[in-house]
Amino acid sequence: MPGDQSNRQIGLLVPWDPDGAGPAHQRLAAALRHQVNNGRLRPGDRLPPTRILAEELGLSRWVITEAYDQLKAEGYLTGRVGSGTVVAGVRETGTVRTASGSSSARRATPGPGTGELPPGLSGTVDLSPALPDLASFPRTAWRAALTRALATASDVDLGYPDPAGAPALRTTMAAYLRRVRGLDTDPERVHVTQGVRNAVALVSRALRSRGARRVAVEDPSWPRMRDISRAAGLDVVPVPVDRDGIRVDRLPGLDVDAVFVTPTHQFPTGVPLSASRRVALIEWATARDGIVVEDDYDAEFRYDRRPVGALATRARDRVVYLGSTSKTLSPALHLGWMIAPARLDDALAAARDGIGTLAPTLDQLALAALISTGAYDRHLRRLRGLYRHRRTALLTALSASVPGSAYASMDAGVHVLWQLPDDTDETAVLTEAGERGLSLLGLTQCRVGPGPPGLVLGYGNLPEHRAPGVAEALADAVRAAGGR
Amino acid sequence: MPGDQSNRQIGLLVPWDPDGAGPAHQRLAAALRHQVNNGRLRPGDRLPPTRILAEELGLSRWVITEAYDQLKAEGYLTGRVGSGTVVAGVRETGTVRTASGSSSARRATPGPGTGELPPGLSGTVDLSPALPDLASFPRTAWRAALTRALATASDVDLGYPDPAGAPALRTTMAAYLRRVRGLDTDPERVHVTQGVRNAVALVSRALRSRGARRVAVEDPSWPRMRDISRAAGLDVVPVPVDRDGIRVDRLPGLDVDAVFVTPTHQFPTGVPLSASRRVALIEWATARDGIVVEDDYDAEFRYDRRPVGALATRARDRVVYLGSTSKTLSPALHLGWMIAPARLDDALAAARDGIGTLAPTLDQLALAALISTGAYDRHLRRLRGLYRHRRTALLTALSASVPGSAYASMDAGVHVLWQLPDDTDETAVLTEAGERGLSLLGLTQCRVGPGPPGLVLGYGNLPEHRAPGVAEALADAVRAAGGR
Repeated sequence: MPGDQSNRQIGLLVPWDPDGAGPAHQRLAAALRHQVNNGRLRPGDRLPPTRILAEELGLSRWVITEAYDQLKAEGYLTGRVGSGTVVAGVRETGTVRTASGSSSARRATPGPGTGELPPGLSGTVDLSPALPDLASFPRTAWRAALTRALATASDVDLGYPDPAGAPALRTTMAAYLRRVRGLDTDPERVHVTQGVRNAVALVSRALRSRGARRVAVEDPSWPRMRDISRAAGLDVVPVPVDRDGIRVDRLPGLDVDAVFVTPTHQFPTGVPLSASRRVALIEWATARDGIVVEDDYDAEFRYDRRPVGALATRARDRVVYLGSTSKTLSPALHLGWMIAPARLDDALAAARDGIGTLAPTLDQLALAALISTGAYDRHLRRLRGLYRHRRTALLTALSASVPGSAYASMDAGVHVLWQLPDDTDETAVLTEAGERGLSLLGLTQCRVGPGPPGLVLGYGNLPEHRAPGVAEALADAVRAAGGR
Repeated sequence: MPGDQSNRQIGLLVPWDPDGAGPAHQRLAAALRHQVNNGRLRPGDRLPPTRILAEELGLSRWVITEAYDQLKAEGYLTGRVGSGTVVAGVRETGTVRTASGSSSARRATPGPGTGELPPGLSGTVDLSPALPDLASFPRTAWRAALTRALATASDVDLGYPDPAGAPALRTTMAAYLRRVRGLDTDPERVHVTQGVRNAVALVSRALRSRGARRVAVEDPSWPRMRDISRAAGLDVVPVPVDRDGIRVDRLPGLDVDAVFVTPTHQFPTGVPLSASRRVALIEWATARDGIVVEDDYDAEFRYDRRPVGALATRARDRVVYLGSTSKTLSPALHLGWMIAPARLDDALAAARDGIGTLAPTLDQLALAALISTGAYDRHLRRLRGLYRHRRTALLTALSASVPGSAYASMDAGVHVLWQLPDDTDETAVLTEAGERGLSLLGLTQCRVGPGPPGLVLGYGNLPEHRAPGVAEALADAVRAAGGR
């Protein structure tokens, strides 16, 4: 265990040119990254507090915080508010010391067979597709937003809340969704939820109370959502997904009252719903007097071009739109939103009354503050850059470890579907992967009917320098499963 | 509108003797109260920030904060974090200027008939029985607790949470409930909820999934609870309440699988469940293999002696125990707890999965911090003193305005049941009270079967100096309803 380095003068370690070209925080991050890669900063070394380093280098504290955050996001540093920032990897023998990290990491992969654990895999790696980068949670900005919420909340705000949500957040969300998703809506149409699962519970109960019996779901899709609709008393009817999204042409024959879809980026296949099917879906809903529930679960993360507009923009009286902070901030916040047609208001209110839950008011006001101050946009911009690099790193590493791998290719989201050869035993692969410290979701777990095997790989928590090791471990798990 | 007084030197206004007798914060509160009562400080006057006044007077900032908080609790001052402290009553013509407030308020009541609004009733007065004093929400302590939660939460804590709650809070709650309610329980038995309504939704669904069809409720009782059980598919069977609490002897004939009770302080009648009925209730549950759900909704507030232990202490395998912060901190937090027998764990987990909700992890960690630092106990001690005085003020004022009034007399909680003469038209009284700016709950709204009329008066938000005005308005409403 290296000694505590907190008293070392950082000025001796970081060559800093105040007149260098480019943004100061990027240059500082590069300098620190270099010190880690050349071994001057070692796993366990403690970095100076941002205030101290800012004074040492004559920089603003913001510059230091940004640089630290960037390196935390890349997996070079670790730490949290109040307990200091430390060079990562002290428990990961052979990982940080050897990986060169950043954009060159995916080429500088140490080969397997060294007799040690695969690089980057000394602990469990969470490839859960629903998890954002937890180390990137904007603790400072969220604390500031909570402080602002506490300072501006009236006493009445601390009483029994409006069950549909705090007016301040509903107003902020309506404007936000108009700006980023093209949704022309009013604050009264916005319902605050505890996230998409809670919203599915509410809308399922509301539909059931209005006489709905059967709802269609995409096959494959997120399995928990189907369970939640069933718990509300609905029969769940699977509809196949192909490369253009859900087979809308199947709906008229199914006698369903509603359909749950992920049109922006189908979960888990990753395809967007085609333009012609979007039109057909709304036509079906209109003819049937049905409801389309649009789960816009990762719309914030599209890396190739501006995201397509939400389906809800086309037919506000037919579509219930769902979003949350679970993939942008943290699923622990349990905070989301729903836009619903006015005729569902009473049924939704009754459903809410029946389960007695709501996001706490102060959290709602904090999210409104986070958005209105621009901190939420800044956070998302940072995450987009981070995820794009992580995605590239994972796909590059997978191609290197398993030549000819096939995966859904839309440049979006925080997961990729890795298609396995048809004769692969997916369950055996999951078991082998688990034994190699990989926690992930199999495509079969997302399916209702039969279909080819695959793995749903979330890269939200996968720093670039760990991608080669993970790809190697995955390849190894597939090989081992084949031998069973 | 008076001008902004923030630049006035407070040293000129507050005669302060550094060698005076008694606690400094009480003496400072008395001095400021005097300045309001003699008109030197007027409604709308802005008080100096605590830091400034502390410097002026050579006192610790804590002393200033305590004094301000005390006067806010009494209704003399108003204000919130970040926007300063102001003398209350700027919109309440004739209220603060004339009421002498504090302990003398209930004797120094200006009489009615002055041609103005009744004293203290220029706006709506919320006598909702379920509301704590919102101005007493410990904003500073809660912000500190949130900051601590953000600083100590691990990245994993920000991922998908344990649906039963954060281990830190479950451990803290088990120790807290052992200490203050005599409940010998383990952290694994503690389920975090979003409050009592959410807990009733969960336990109702859990009971239903285990085959329960019929549940008994107290009559009268909190009406929303019955609705929530019905929404879960249960038939609700009312059981009368007398002066010893629920008529336990009726249970064996009712073919019910569970019973929901408020044994510490029956809502809304205010009586405790007698010792012999406690024994009989557990005997019934054991013989029937039934479940008793104990809503310990205001156990923190008992003013005459130490609170009686929870019913759950007697039969941990028969009783589901519910509590929350809705009456101690704020219902906007949506944060509570449930202690349940282990055999309900699976059914409760399934019920939670079906509705997709949980208190946010950071709020859970903040409550754990609030309790473990002692701040929660300090807050409750302060509230107990505040509520005891408010209770006395309201009852004294009611007796003065309506000689011979009858009310449930147990010295506890944040509400009192005011019994009306049998021939009173309760609905008309509520209408008349509403027209006089009083928002309150009628006893009939709490009943399933017929019974004598009454009003459930919450005094959590009723400063002492407003009690005479409220009592006068209530008396007036009853008289006006009689004339209909």
